[in-house]
Amino acid sequence: MTTTVSAYAAPSATGPLAPTTIERRDVGPRDVRIEIRYAGICHSDIHTARGEWGPVDWPIVVGHEIAGVVAEIGTEVTKHAVGDRVGVGCMVGSCRECEACRDGEEQYCTGNGTIAGMVGTYGGTDPADGRPTAGGYSQQIVVDEHFVLRIPDGLELDVAAPLLCAGITTYSPLNHWGAGPGTKVAVIGLGGLGHMAVQIAAAKGCEVTVLSQSLKKQEDGLRLGASAYHATSDPDTFRQLAGSFDLIINTVSANLDLDAHMGLLRRNGTLVEVGAPENPMSVRAFSLIPARRSLAGSNIGGIAETQEMLDFCAEHGIAAQVEVIRAEQVNEAWERVVASDVRYRFVIDTSTLPTAPAPVS
Amino acid sequence: MTTTVSAYAAPSATGPLAPTTIERRDVGPRDVRIEIRYAGICHSDIHTARGEWGPVDWPIVVGHEIAGVVAEIGTEVTKHAVGDRVGVGCMVGSCRECEACRDGEEQYCTGNGTIAGMVGTYGGTDPADGRPTAGGYSQQIVVDEHFVLRIPDGLELDVAAPLLCAGITTYSPLNHWGAGPGTKVAVIGLGGLGHMAVQIAAAKGCEVTVLSQSLKKQEDGLRLGASAYHATSDPDTFRQLAGSFDLIINTVSANLDLDAHMGLLRRNGTLVEVGAPENPMSVRAFSLIPARRSLAGSNIGGIAETQEMLDFCAEHGIAAQVEVIRAEQVNEAWERVVASDVRYRFVIDTSTLPTAPAPVS
Repeated sequence: MTTTVSAYAAPSATGPLAPTTIERRDVGPRDVRIEIRYAGICHSDIHTARGEWGPVDWPIVVGHEIAGVVAEIGTEVTKHAVGDRVGVGCMVGSCRECEACRDGEEQYCTGNGTIAGMVGTYGGTDPADGRPTAGGYSQQIVVDEHFVLRIPDGLELDVAAPLLCAGITTYSPLNHWGAGPGTKVAVIGLGGLGHMAVQIAAAKGCEVTVLSQSLKKQEDGLRLGASAYHATSDPDTFRQLAGSFDLIINTVSANLDLDAHMGLLRRNGTLVEVGAPENPMSVRAFSLIPARRSLAGSNIGGIAETQEMLDFCAEHGIAAQVEVIRAEQVNEAWERVVASDVRYRFVIDTSTLPTAPAPVS
Repeated sequence: MTTTVSAYAAPSATGPLAPTTIERRDVGPRDVRIEIRYAGICHSDIHTARGEWGPVDWPIVVGHEIAGVVAEIGTEVTKHAVGDRVGVGCMVGSCRECEACRDGEEQYCTGNGTIAGMVGTYGGTDPADGRPTAGGYSQQIVVDEHFVLRIPDGLELDVAAPLLCAGITTYSPLNHWGAGPGTKVAVIGLGGLGHMAVQIAAAKGCEVTVLSQSLKKQEDGLRLGASAYHATSDPDTFRQLAGSFDLIINTVSANLDLDAHMGLLRRNGTLVEVGAPENPMSVRAFSLIPARRSLAGSNIGGIAETQEMLDFCAEHGIAAQVEVIRAEQVNEAWERVVASDVRYRFVIDTSTLPTAPAPVS
């Protein structure tokens, strides 16, 4: 038995998203069924659905910033109860046995022979039933309790949803590279990820600078916690800030002049890619060697770290700045995301999805 | 007053090196005059003299792997005495005031307004007299005592000379990235730098793999301390060793398929560039993000760390494998370095330089 639920799917790399229904598996012993209330729109949804990160199985239901309420739990579930406010991010499974999993870094799972690695919330293969995983642009999702996060009381579900990807994607590298009081952090790009990075870094006590193409969003950046805001279209920025930062979080998925940006790092500084440009990056060895700089990448965060991030955000009054939309506005919203015309995250109110057909037994 | 000493200089980007004389400054209060006995030939000498790393002031006397004996000391010198066996590496000065200098990382000096940064042993501007610095392919050098290293008794001068660049350039990143027992280290390239990296990493207790284009030098690699040796011309190497290493030291200054090599790193692994390719490097974000990998650069080491390296090498019976040549063989040696036809470092016996003219007062 499965449950038929309403969803929005991308039919192909180019076609507009359209209403559909998908099947959700029955709740197994360790599963949680979530009534999805809100699903954030991440640029990754678009890259994936459009085949920009490689071919996918169309039609695909994307969405990995999921917030909702527990509707049903399996017999062995201990972490969550019916009625709990919960979230699901970019993963719904991992092998749970490899070193990364044992270290609580399921996002870097290297597999155990049966499960090859982290199971994406959409576009993956569900270890429970071997079917393709389908994401949050839908009414319900069934997920192993381990991959279900508790949303603290202080956080509303709509503004919590984007934390499950945009929040943890920026929180994790700030954590990993030890950002704290005294750390000089630059955030490249003030979009969905960037506006979270600024808030989290500021709450951690860092001195935060935004590097954006223009000064259009300067007021927002300063309000969110940055102490400085510079336009990268101005060559003076690179002269003025040379050797300034311990850590740069690059949230922009377009290809930048990396050599110019590496020059902004101090000795032992690291520039971390969290947005993934489609094309190879180019960097000169002489941009790295003279100050022992690093160019790194970071992928979301582990489950324990994601819970820590949600608790941190609740404690510090941090949330995503969202524009809540109805399901039928999703195509327009995608166009605006691609045009960087959103402050700062679209969130689909999933109660506006068409009513699903009555279950067929 | 200056002292005229015999040297070999590159007259231009293309002309062969030829005998010449250069002037060495008088010994100031904190200076040491060194009778150079041996000067190692580093690929950087060639890159620099040929203008491959940017224009230089020809004629130029290169050489930054210098071993010799103290001939004279200034009135305030305390670190060294006449007759001491000493060495000079890639730097002869730094501002001594910036954070990097205060941290003992003079190689990353950011300057103090008067001195702009680390002063190279050749091709720099000598802070003592404002003249261009000239390197080790000469009979003498005068250097501030701070930048003069003690060569421990157990190390012969000819095999110690290359440690001043090839040794410290590989020792420092192994140190910085915490290589020790249990660390899986790969060394790309078994040349001057690579053969030091293998020995040092093995002496630190790491599990060492050599990645070389072919298996030609396999026997040497294993003898020097590697436990495995793989040919990168064999695509199977990349499949077999995927996700294996904590640290890769890339000593090759040609441009490699970095994405393929990054794939050999485990979670949190770092590939460190110590040889500097002339052309920009290309790397995909997806080679970094999925295992939180880093691409880094490292530049020689600080003075205290260089002394530590020399002591470590003496303690562990490590030295460069050298082919000692006469000064007039230097052009042929350069050709062989470019062709990777040396096992593993040429060292000029500077007693074979032409006799310098008598000093003119």
